[in-house]
Amino acid sequence: MRKTRLDTARILAARQVIDPVFLDTPLYRCEALEPGLGCAVSVKLETANPVRSFKARGTELVASRLAGQGARDVVCASAGNLGQALAWSGRGRGLAVTVVASRCATPAKLDSIRALGARLELVDGDHELARERAADIARRDGIRLVEDSLDIETCEGAATIGLELAAAATPFDVVLVALGGGALATGVGHVLKAMAPGVEVVCVQPLGAPALTHSWRQRRVVTTDSADTIADGVAGRRPIPAVLDDLLLVADDAVLVQEASIIAGMRMLLDHAGLVVEPSAALGIAAVLEDRDRFAGRHVVTVVCGSNVNLDAYHRWVC
Amino acid sequence: MRKTRLDTARILAARQVIDPVFLDTPLYRCEALEPGLGCAVSVKLETANPVRSFKARGTELVASRLAGQGARDVVCASAGNLGQALAWSGRGRGLAVTVVASRCATPAKLDSIRALGARLELVDGDHELARERAADIARRDGIRLVEDSLDIETCEGAATIGLELAAAATPFDVVLVALGGGALATGVGHVLKAMAPGVEVVCVQPLGAPALTHSWRQRRVVTTDSADTIADGVAGRRPIPAVLDDLLLVADDAVLVQEASIIAGMRMLLDHAGLVVEPSAALGIAAVLEDRDRFAGRHVVTVVCGSNVNLDAYHRWVC
Repeated sequence: MRKTRLDTARILAARQVIDPVFLDTPLYRCEALEPGLGCAVSVKLETANPVRSFKARGTELVASRLAGQGARDVVCASAGNLGQALAWSGRGRGLAVTVVASRCATPAKLDSIRALGARLELVDGDHELARERAADIARRDGIRLVEDSLDIETCEGAATIGLELAAAATPFDVVLVALGGGALATGVGHVLKAMAPGVEVVCVQPLGAPALTHSWRQRRVVTTDSADTIADGVAGRRPIPAVLDDLLLVADDAVLVQEASIIAGMRMLLDHAGLVVEPSAALGIAAVLEDRDRFAGRHVVTVVCGSNVNLDAYHRWVC
Repeated sequence: MRKTRLDTARILAARQVIDPVFLDTPLYRCEALEPGLGCAVSVKLETANPVRSFKARGTELVASRLAGQGARDVVCASAGNLGQALAWSGRGRGLAVTVVASRCATPAKLDSIRALGARLELVDGDHELARERAADIARRDGIRLVEDSLDIETCEGAATIGLELAAAATPFDVVLVALGGGALATGVGHVLKAMAPGVEVVCVQPLGAPALTHSWRQRRVVTTDSADTIADGVAGRRPIPAVLDDLLLVADDAVLVQEASIIAGMRMLLDHAGLVVEPSAALGIAAVLEDRDRFAGRHVVTVVCGSNVNLDAYHRWVC
């Protein structure tokens, strides 16, 4: 049988490297959400930490390894959350961090990257162009390029969420994970398939940025010419072949949701759970809203993966 | 030397009784808050659990003890958070829970109490009248009355927050706790004085509901005729003598803040930490805003004690 690139023993070991402030995040039932969704709902909350997303689980591994190797610099392309997380993890280990982002990225995320002391370079274009520019810098300067979802540390970091879910006191039936580059889905999926194989792993992507979902369905890389979604954290166009291979092994399904459902999900998380979240963190709720019958009577866990959102836009969407 | 009513060994033992979903809550630096406050700020977040406040730490102890004694019923007066918590803890242990609340209590809290299966009785009047009515019911029916802050379990439950603060990886200088009935302040204060005596324990109460602060300053119970604050969770008028005695032993200071500062604190927690909180959870930030010089350059931890807030009112205040 084919195996993913991930290794459960390495993921367990990763817990020893990641700052505990990012581990053992809250996992709890939100009964107030349930009448509106028709199923039992628990939230795995990845926003109550210094970077307000799960991404630091991975950047802690990257930065720790680089520091151990005596490296001084690191660069990544980021729509925001990876950049913030790498800036935080790098700062703590004396690394000079460069983040390349699209000029259209969420201002709140860019401000945070700067505040954390990273050098920020903006490109005119979308995230895929930022990826190219970051790769150029890495080649030119001979420094490590961190590629989200391709680099195994980013998947292993995300996978530590899977360990925590597998250890949950209350059993659950389904986990809903945002699908962007694929690190979260392949990481969580790998661990659950190994440790809680009865749990259905459902990946959720915006209809406006469907490349990896189409790729999963067609079992081959499908790119798109554009991505059009408010869920900036998952707006990729060019899936990474190795990540798709892993996703084919661990995802039970990949579904696409409309923008209106993402907004409705954000609104429900505010109204009934008191949570301000970024759009990608509402993808799971959006998936339930679009297919209540599928989840009726089951216990779903949705990973609330980030809360870095521009509040002006948030209020426009939600209020 | 006089001692508080609390006992550190009992508080340690309480951790074994409380559902883990309420324990080991996030504690993290919020650097984005710091430019506006002039000090290092960490948040102890008590909202990411099924009842969205710290109160279940105490009701878990009450309900567990009652169930162990074969009790079937329990009653409390509550502005909302204690009622929700007791409803949750009681339901899990087969107890019939009655909550008496003021008709003016936050609707969102009352809805949650009902949704958790408790019997809700509303009184025309404020929280002190609800306390009297709950006591009447307890006498009439011969059932346990849970009195927030007076009953030692409510203080011991809150005190488990102190254990987690004392074990913090990063040292801090000050803890800011909301002052209402006094359970949170005496619980956290007791543990910190025992285990981290260098930490300053600062209680914060609204200027519009100052009874316990005046009592602490005058070292005798001072009641007020009315309470007028948006911070419904801390709007008491008649301090409990035994709680005041404890508070005099463990609080380094008790300060009063204006309503405008509470609102400014709520707004800062939303804008810079992405947290929707109820007014009482913003008291700590309000205290820093009103006396920046006092906290300048120090590391303060503020206990974000609840997020059960009426969103209509919240938007009116904050947006």
